[in-house]
Amino acid sequence: MTNIKNRYSLIIVGAGPAGLTASIYASRYKLGHLIIGEDLGGLAFEAHKICNFPTEKEILGMKIIEKMQKHVESLDAPLIIDKVINIVQKNKVFEITTQKGKIFLADALLLATGTIHRRLNLPNESKFLGKGISYCATCDAMFHQNKTVAVIGGGNSANTASLYLAEIAKKIYQIYRKNKLRGETEWANQVINNKKIDVIYNTKVIGLKGKEKLEKIVLTSPHQKAKEIAIDSLFIEIGTVPQKILTEQLSLTTNKNHFIEVNSSQKTSRNGVWAAGDITTASNNFHQIITACSEGAIAAESIFKFFQEKNK
Amino acid sequence: MTNIKNRYSLIIVGAGPAGLTASIYASRYKLGHLIIGEDLGGLAFEAHKICNFPTEKEILGMKIIEKMQKHVESLDAPLIIDKVINIVQKNKVFEITTQKGKIFLADALLLATGTIHRRLNLPNESKFLGKGISYCATCDAMFHQNKTVAVIGGGNSANTASLYLAEIAKKIYQIYRKNKLRGETEWANQVINNKKIDVIYNTKVIGLKGKEKLEKIVLTSPHQKAKEIAIDSLFIEIGTVPQKILTEQLSLTTNKNHFIEVNSSQKTSRNGVWAAGDITTASNNFHQIITACSEGAIAAESIFKFFQEKNK
Repeated sequence: MTNIKNRYSLIIVGAGPAGLTASIYASRYKLGHLIIGEDLGGLAFEAHKICNFPTEKEILGMKIIEKMQKHVESLDAPLIIDKVINIVQKNKVFEITTQKGKIFLADALLLATGTIHRRLNLPNESKFLGKGISYCATCDAMFHQNKTVAVIGGGNSANTASLYLAEIAKKIYQIYRKNKLRGETEWANQVINNKKIDVIYNTKVIGLKGKEKLEKIVLTSPHQKAKEIAIDSLFIEIGTVPQKILTEQLSLTTNKNHFIEVNSSQKTSRNGVWAAGDITTASNNFHQIITACSEGAIAAESIFKFFQEKNK
Repeated sequence: MTNIKNRYSLIIVGAGPAGLTASIYASRYKLGHLIIGEDLGGLAFEAHKICNFPTEKEILGMKIIEKMQKHVESLDAPLIIDKVINIVQKNKVFEITTQKGKIFLADALLLATGTIHRRLNLPNESKFLGKGISYCATCDAMFHQNKTVAVIGGGNSANTASLYLAEIAKKIYQIYRKNKLRGETEWANQVINNKKIDVIYNTKVIGLKGKEKLEKIVLTSPHQKAKEIAIDSLFIEIGTVPQKILTEQLSLTTNKNHFIEVNSSQKTSRNGVWAAGDITTASNNFHQIITACSEGAIAAESIFKFFQEKNK
């Protein structure tokens, strides 16, 4: 945290796997840089069990992020926790304003702000947030000893949420709009074979009922003759959407779902701006910790070459 | 090593970071597969110090491979050490023959055979191999206590070879054809500041002299008035070239340097064949352990989807 200056060659926005790996490479290239992250680790931090990172048989999301953070810090790269709220380009320099009112200047930018949880967009969803609705099983499962909960979704996030909740809660309804779970077969099989988990297929949640807190969810079709199920909490795990404010401020080219288009060196459509990690269309849209790290490394090498050319 | 069958959905050729990571993902997808590697770890295994893998501040190549291998084995994926010498496609099935005379069949193939050391292509180079010429400082440096050695090259491999040799040998000549070291600035600076290492720029080695073993190298231009330098050993670290026999047998599209062209899902030009790691043109041609792992993961997901489509 020492030695925060106002101007850097490179500013990395985002402190998840992509941003942290990019910092490690940038440090090895002796590229003066600053990392600004709204939080440390992004969505990876929340992961309960990571079982597919090649060098770790099983590891908590927060532990894998801690390893990367220590590596970053050992190379003396400054990292601040703050939210970037505005970026403008004046001549060739980027001016970056944070929520805490700090202003930084940079010659190159790497956007690695990742994704956030997708919402159901139902009435009452915001009202019940923290009062029976959660987007993070890892964060909140521990409050559900012997409770009845529901999980919405059918991919890896929903499957691992159900499995983690099954270690704590009494009963889990997993509600999925399709007829077969997606994601890794290993997780899907574990869900199907877990006696505490009741998977309700071909069904959506269309209503959220309760007074002070969420009490019942309303389904599109009846489950065991009831269209409403009484639950203590609902975990919404229906995918993620990219952070798009900075993308729009910089007028970067994206696909229709707002993921940033990058070329093979992780360059965006705007000169001086790179992007890496879940926010991009790279890695065949396969959003994994290992692919995010790789994109961060590729971006850092490309940025290093950009400065080598510039300084010739 | 248990339960080796003759036929698999997927055969992964190569047991380096790309192949091992692909296996971990394939296991999580419950995709029946076999890994056949000529050796374990490929070039990564030889690396003396890896300082840019995000979750490891500093680790030996063999240690990082050991971690991946343990992960692979914990998921019961069979791995055999043998060299694939021939692949033919009969109808839609690949028939794979190994040096030990085994034959395996597979519906899908992942080539992850990486690269091998580039040679100088000088007379006597093969004759002196193991008699004063080495392509692996990590393997052979320990025999050079207080000796005088030379390293050829100016990239990360050459720089780290010189630095490692400087811990053991008395004197290192690093001979490079260009006027400035390449690769990570951190390594380059350490080389330049190391008093045991004498970097000879703008110079090539054009001759290898000796009777039973290498005794002298001949330079294109004199160094301290001498065109010949007496050394105990020469370490050749001038880059890598892809393994190309299997690529040619399968008639895969490559670039002019024989690296396999792949699309965003790591698919090659031949249906049923994927490639990942240093042998491909993916990851912006940035050959790193982290990029190889990522390519392996992307390939495995694509192969999983291929079988899902096939079994519909």
